[in-house]
Amino acid sequence: MRVVEVIERKRDGAKLSAEEIDRIVLGFTKGEVPDYQMAAFLMAVVWRGMDDEETAWLTDSMVRSGKRLDLSRYGRVVDKHSTGGIGDKVTLVVAPLVAACGAPVAKMSGRGLGITGGTLDKLESFRGYRVDLTTKELMTQLGRIGIVVTGQTKDLAPADGAMYALRDATGTVPSIPLIASSIMSKKIAAGAHAVVLDVKVGAGAFMRTVRQARELARLMVAIGEAHGLDVTAELTAMEAPLGNAVGNSLEVAEAIATLRGDGPADLRDVVLAAGAEMLYLARRARTRAAGRAMLERAIADGSGLAKLRQLVAAQGGDVTMVDDPSRLPRATRLRTLTAERTAYVARLDASLVGLASVRLGAGREKKGDPIDHATGIVLRAKPGDRVARGEPYAEVHSSGGSGDAEALDMVGRAFTWRRTTVRPPKLMLGTVRSSHGGSAPLPPPGASLDP
Amino acid sequence: MRVVEVIERKRDGAKLSAEEIDRIVLGFTKGEVPDYQMAAFLMAVVWRGMDDEETAWLTDSMVRSGKRLDLSRYGRVVDKHSTGGIGDKVTLVVAPLVAACGAPVAKMSGRGLGITGGTLDKLESFRGYRVDLTTKELMTQLGRIGIVVTGQTKDLAPADGAMYALRDATGTVPSIPLIASSIMSKKIAAGAHAVVLDVKVGAGAFMRTVRQARELARLMVAIGEAHGLDVTAELTAMEAPLGNAVGNSLEVAEAIATLRGDGPADLRDVVLAAGAEMLYLARRARTRAAGRAMLERAIADGSGLAKLRQLVAAQGGDVTMVDDPSRLPRATRLRTLTAERTAYVARLDASLVGLASVRLGAGREKKGDPIDHATGIVLRAKPGDRVARGEPYAEVHSSGGSGDAEALDMVGRAFTWRRTTVRPPKLMLGTVRSSHGGSAPLPPPGASLDP
Repeated sequence: MRVVEVIERKRDGAKLSAEEIDRIVLGFTKGEVPDYQMAAFLMAVVWRGMDDEETAWLTDSMVRSGKRLDLSRYGRVVDKHSTGGIGDKVTLVVAPLVAACGAPVAKMSGRGLGITGGTLDKLESFRGYRVDLTTKELMTQLGRIGIVVTGQTKDLAPADGAMYALRDATGTVPSIPLIASSIMSKKIAAGAHAVVLDVKVGAGAFMRTVRQARELARLMVAIGEAHGLDVTAELTAMEAPLGNAVGNSLEVAEAIATLRGDGPADLRDVVLAAGAEMLYLARRARTRAAGRAMLERAIADGSGLAKLRQLVAAQGGDVTMVDDPSRLPRATRLRTLTAERTAYVARLDASLVGLASVRLGAGREKKGDPIDHATGIVLRAKPGDRVARGEPYAEVHSSGGSGDAEALDMVGRAFTWRRTTVRPPKLMLGTVRSSHGGSAPLPPPGASLDP
Repeated sequence: MRVVEVIERKRDGAKLSAEEIDRIVLGFTKGEVPDYQMAAFLMAVVWRGMDDEETAWLTDSMVRSGKRLDLSRYGRVVDKHSTGGIGDKVTLVVAPLVAACGAPVAKMSGRGLGITGGTLDKLESFRGYRVDLTTKELMTQLGRIGIVVTGQTKDLAPADGAMYALRDATGTVPSIPLIASSIMSKKIAAGAHAVVLDVKVGAGAFMRTVRQARELARLMVAIGEAHGLDVTAELTAMEAPLGNAVGNSLEVAEAIATLRGDGPADLRDVVLAAGAEMLYLARRARTRAAGRAMLERAIADGSGLAKLRQLVAAQGGDVTMVDDPSRLPRATRLRTLTAERTAYVARLDASLVGLASVRLGAGREKKGDPIDHATGIVLRAKPGDRVARGEPYAEVHSSGGSGDAEALDMVGRAFTWRRTTVRPPKLMLGTVRSSHGGSAPLPPPGASLDP
């Protein structure tokens, strides 16, 4: 089978076989298929798409391009993934809460790029926090404290990393089958038994419409099913940023506040929905409502925050910053935006806020750029809120860089005002589940890892 | 302007600007744009197409990637190009005839690949014939004898060569704008003032339908107009091979016979149509009918054959082979296919005959393969002809290679027979001309090069 013939078949709209997809993906990983053939193939996939079976085969090839972790000895391991948004610090809150409720959480996260922040960058706000655990360290820590949040190791789904770098340079990112297989190959290779996906929808997300997001969610659930994973995808709004803080330390401080029972309502809602689903799929809770109650207890009794402290300590981070968030990196300058007249926030453009955070140095324009952990934006008003004349509606935390004036202007422009009342927008936009999702019985009590 | 943004704009169906196309094409030629970005771009062009203006800009970028010859001192130089077919030896006949009628012909030809033969390979049947003239040698020879047929020099439209190699490996060959710009960039860079294109249509050609062929023809004429060239495209049938001979020496012998007034009718028709148009566009003939009469005289008085002799001599070939074609390379084995019962040839599949010639070693499977100049096929019957029981309908000339049996079988299967009379198929399928094509007056007599 010649590689050019596989490219030609996809170009002409044919359905590829598992063998043909293997030929391209594994050949590419081994360096037998040159990057220009992969680039042409990827553009043909953007053009012609892939059906569910092809996408599952593609995912499978990507998984088989490297190692697949076996975490079964730790019980049913549950993972969580967000497709990325502005102010999305859900992992920082939900992973410790779920682990505190006894479900092992092994999460491999990424760095931020463009307007989308990354969990690894946020965690590095804790001085000394390591995101480069080896597989052995990951396994040891998971066994010891039931939680790990680290970077992707190079031996898991290496085809995905190489393909993603090429997609980024060749305009072949926007393809639902390519996005779905990229996310799911990493989750499968990382050894998860169940995955909760947070598919962001709106102006600040990659999926602009509920329809696109639902298609991506459906496809990822189908891929998970084909690989024996329980997968639930929740569609959540990303028109405005999630929570009030945007920027690394600021988001970490908001996550700690949320673990203390003091977080913004929208962030808390997404955390409880995702966490309840995680506990249910991990078979730690008989119902989602029971899972939600467990999470609320883990907030109330401080066990969630204690688990975050354990996580930071285990990965070499400065735990005094968990106990006293004022010790996190702090910006040197603070500018407050105040309302010129009394009005309601009609809309708040997440992508403009995200762009402003990049200008402040909190995000990176391109891979490898350094970031400033101290800077960012705190939104004092969200859509639906009333702001009286002279009251503050946003804070800009900066380090005195050249992008500050532009950032301030962007934050101002991100707000659309109205004189009359505004109904707060809907946050939870739907759920897509595996047909057999979570229907298996609870494991015996002896299987409990972290009671 | 970032290259990935240009790729994305084409992916999304936008019309690119001249600057954007330059960025990709000239960047690629200089090695600044990597081949994987060019590959993704090419697939996006196959997908989304290009309008006439974009295609003209693309052609212009490709021309400006290298040198452009200025042949004005030799008068109005006319070129000729065929999109490629089986048994197409038109150049070998028409170039000497037109040159003999006083229009300078500077033709850069290619090698054969797959079922399509190449003029350079055919000319190399003359022992010693050089196809690698330098630009200086080309100019000197054009001035001296008014005819050159050589290979493309590397400094003309280098972007085209590099892009074509990439297209071949990435499934991005079948795109009318890419085909049109590839052909026309070479013609423009080579300094032609007028071009006659022979666009082949049918089972043995790249363009399968008259509709596709007409679109390709229309686009090439438009590109030529945008660059100040007079272009005429003739659509000719390529269901059956052109003429009777397929294979290098066999085709050369048939070309010599045609120059002697003794060629097959279909070949002679295509030669006279293309040659008359060339003379008209070169302003050597006031009308096409007058051009046709000039060509017929050049056959009758032997001046066409004399010009071929001059060409072969000038480029180092063995002229005794022109005088005595039996001295051309000859196959060692001859198999004749005879009719099992009396019937008419209903169809003759050019692509099967072409494949058979590749099996005999007369063509190459991939670039760089050696070829056998002696082998090939002679068709003793063409569609519409009646063959009596026991009479020969085809000869297979071979060198005793491993593909002989398969080739013989293919030639047999290429013929479809019918008991009742068959109307010979139409050969000339239409013409597309520049709106101002050839309307300028004849040059003053003093400009004549080869009176």
